[in-house]
Amino acid sequence: MSELRYNILTRDWVIIATERAKRPEAFRRPAAEVAVLPGYDKSCPFCPGNEGDLSDETFRLGDKNAWRVRSVYNKFPALSPATEEVRRPNLLYNSMSGFGVHEVIVEHPRHDMNIALMSEGEVEDIIRTYKERYLSIQKDRRIEAIIIFKNQGPSAGASQRHPHSQLVATPIVPPHIRNRMDQATRYFDGAGRCIFCRILEDELKFKERIVLETGHFVAYMPYASYVPFTMIVQPKRHAPSFDEISEDEIKDLAKCLKVTLGKLYKGLGDPDYNYTIRSIPIREKGVEYFHWTLNIVPRLTQPAGFEMGSGIFINTALPEEAARFLRNIK
Amino acid sequence: MSELRYNILTRDWVIIATERAKRPEAFRRPAAEVAVLPGYDKSCPFCPGNEGDLSDETFRLGDKNAWRVRSVYNKFPALSPATEEVRRPNLLYNSMSGFGVHEVIVEHPRHDMNIALMSEGEVEDIIRTYKERYLSIQKDRRIEAIIIFKNQGPSAGASQRHPHSQLVATPIVPPHIRNRMDQATRYFDGAGRCIFCRILEDELKFKERIVLETGHFVAYMPYASYVPFTMIVQPKRHAPSFDEISEDEIKDLAKCLKVTLGKLYKGLGDPDYNYTIRSIPIREKGVEYFHWTLNIVPRLTQPAGFEMGSGIFINTALPEEAARFLRNIK
Repeated sequence: MSELRYNILTRDWVIIATERAKRPEAFRRPAAEVAVLPGYDKSCPFCPGNEGDLSDETFRLGDKNAWRVRSVYNKFPALSPATEEVRRPNLLYNSMSGFGVHEVIVEHPRHDMNIALMSEGEVEDIIRTYKERYLSIQKDRRIEAIIIFKNQGPSAGASQRHPHSQLVATPIVPPHIRNRMDQATRYFDGAGRCIFCRILEDELKFKERIVLETGHFVAYMPYASYVPFTMIVQPKRHAPSFDEISEDEIKDLAKCLKVTLGKLYKGLGDPDYNYTIRSIPIREKGVEYFHWTLNIVPRLTQPAGFEMGSGIFINTALPEEAARFLRNIK
Repeated sequence: MSELRYNILTRDWVIIATERAKRPEAFRRPAAEVAVLPGYDKSCPFCPGNEGDLSDETFRLGDKNAWRVRSVYNKFPALSPATEEVRRPNLLYNSMSGFGVHEVIVEHPRHDMNIALMSEGEVEDIIRTYKERYLSIQKDRRIEAIIIFKNQGPSAGASQRHPHSQLVATPIVPPHIRNRMDQATRYFDGAGRCIFCRILEDELKFKERIVLETGHFVAYMPYASYVPFTMIVQPKRHAPSFDEISEDEIKDLAKCLKVTLGKLYKGLGDPDYNYTIRSIPIREKGVEYFHWTLNIVPRLTQPAGFEMGSGIFINTALPEEAARFLRNIK
């Protein structure tokens, strides 16, 4: 018998379709289909030695010829800082020029590397780079919000296999952030506290949806998970914006992320996935009602016409079972 | 230079990424990759002679052994009418039992058929079946909304190749309908008329995003299209709910849908797509502010981490160019 669950943060209902449900291990990619990549690919623009193929570097950890992590402008940017910000207000046909920033963070010199397989120090360097870029880009007062995200594997929309993340800074508040702010504000107005803090407190009590707890972070599956094995990695300390992360927390997040993605890698056979970091808009920092999170979304199923038409997702894995499965992967 | 456009109906921004834009013909599927299907597949549960493999029939046009269109309960339903409606209200962990209806509409006896290739009469029969099921299922007062949709091809989430649509009746108002109702109400309160009627009037004046106009329907690309070649098929007459469609309009919609999908089929090499029909909730019929539509969403690109994190879609085709391309396909 299937169940509908309500996501208070988005006002979305999700169908947990137990009639169609699969065992957690049924989502595993067969070993023969796991991509085997070379350590170096001479046609890859992100591999060492090919740096000239890229647009200008914006930041680097390590030497020019022995870098560990580097960020560059995206060669085919969705939004560009060279574009003048021009708004054309109109009730029904509102538009603006494509001003913004779109950078690529090359996570590691090796073409075949994967966060699940890196050392904790290497993952720390990626997070330090995220923070540096976040702090630097937000100085432009025309930027309203910054989204950091990762597309891992072709079905997650990655056009390059070399390990990389991206950062897009937008001149508008993205709807997925605005909607959560609206809902979090309503909860705050009634309960007087951050809804994300409250949910984390509950989840740590319930235990059944927790995948991993480290010193400063918790990885858990949301109660109304809209796809199988989706996880939230949330800081325990109340903080509305990612760039407030401390050096201690960077070290702990590196550990939490590496182990959590390692559980996916080992348990489900290197699945494709996306992760995204959502924060409060740049000029609204310090609020009590919002909390930054890193959301991991494995690409194990294909949303179809029902999801598109209704906005209701059909999830074929019970979050509690999926969480138990990953907890037990060492 | 890319452009951001605002969708007043959803409050979503879309990036029209002209830096990454492709020519319309670049979205065409190579001829060698177009699936060639047999007219009959003995392992297909939807093919004539295999009706016993399916759950109970709910409706049929034609004789038992010479049916034209039939509807059956989905064998693996997301929601089931046999489930008792039980609500478990809770602020943060709200849930209810999976009560609802999930039917499959088998569109044609032939395994290799496609709406683009059917006769107008055959498409009319599909739409008549949609209407009959809509009218019949809404009698259950526990049903709040009905979504009709089609998954065409594997990348659109179809697990069966035999031509079919689906219908899901939900005990809740789906978020994609509720959000559009909220926005349409706001416009109505200010302007005193249906925003969908107003947009259609504008589009018929602008002409540049129109793909096809028939007697009672218009197929056009939305100003803030979130994916390449997405189209809205909208009745000219103000009507909030699909089941208000008249016999004349059924005939005209059959023609409009067949020709529009035929343009996609010929112009883009039989692409995978979804379409969905959205109506006002069952118990709110007759309102002045809402309008039913059929939305066609071809599966030509893969949304990635940015779309997931932000809710902002990056569209690599200019709607005006894509519409001109399809207008010229005969």
